[in-house]
Amino acid sequence: MSKGFVAINFIRCEPNYVSRFEELFRTRARAIERMAGFRSMAVLKPKQSGEPYLVVSHWDSEEAFEAWTRSPEFLEGHRRGFDDMRKAKESGQNPPMTSEFKTYEILTD
Amino acid sequence: MSKGFVAINFIRCEPNYVSRFEELFRTRARAIERMAGFRSMAVLKPKQSGEPYLVVSHWDSEEAFEAWTRSPEFLEGHRRGFDDMRKAKESGQNPPMTSEFKTYEILTD
Repeated sequence: MSKGFVAINFIRCEPNYVSRFEELFRTRARAIERMAGFRSMAVLKPKQSGEPYLVVSHWDSEEAFEAWTRSPEFLEGHRRGFDDMRKAKESGQNPPMTSEFKTYEILTD
Repeated sequence: MSKGFVAINFIRCEPNYVSRFEELFRTRARAIERMAGFRSMAVLKPKQSGEPYLVVSHWDSEEAFEAWTRSPEFLEGHRRGFDDMRKAKESGQNPPMTSEFKTYEILTD
């Protein structure tokens, strides 16, 4: 088995959205776990203020990760967060969070 | 068992040091694996240019991580890298890499 592939979503969250944000992850849909090639994930909360949360997911391959981002499971897993983003936009508010995916190969363990 | 604690070393590497840097990790001393409370680690190589390498280590607790940073195993595991840093400094060169630890609690998996 290959060492695998890692995607990290760097998420910055508005202060007034933190408790909702953490609740969404604590009660997450786990739809991602039905994807072929998914290995594991972890949601990391920074100890230092001003740092983003990291959502780290391990995959068999980059292709498996890319397939997830185009899947119904991706939409299912992000449904409540996407709803919150849409509602903020519709009411003229700033987005409650911003996120950016960065991707990695596993050099060694 | 608690969800645990994660430390990530964000390492930026000079272009002319990349091959040496990767070789050091591929042949790493594995001294860290003798530490109480150590769970696992992964060295992540960014797919996007300009991004840092991430050295991710999982621990039972923040205390276990902190104990490692003060241990003989920490010096043993970093000996060749620290030697390279010292030689660069002695010859008036820029450091071949810069690094910064950030720490996290595991909100959920």
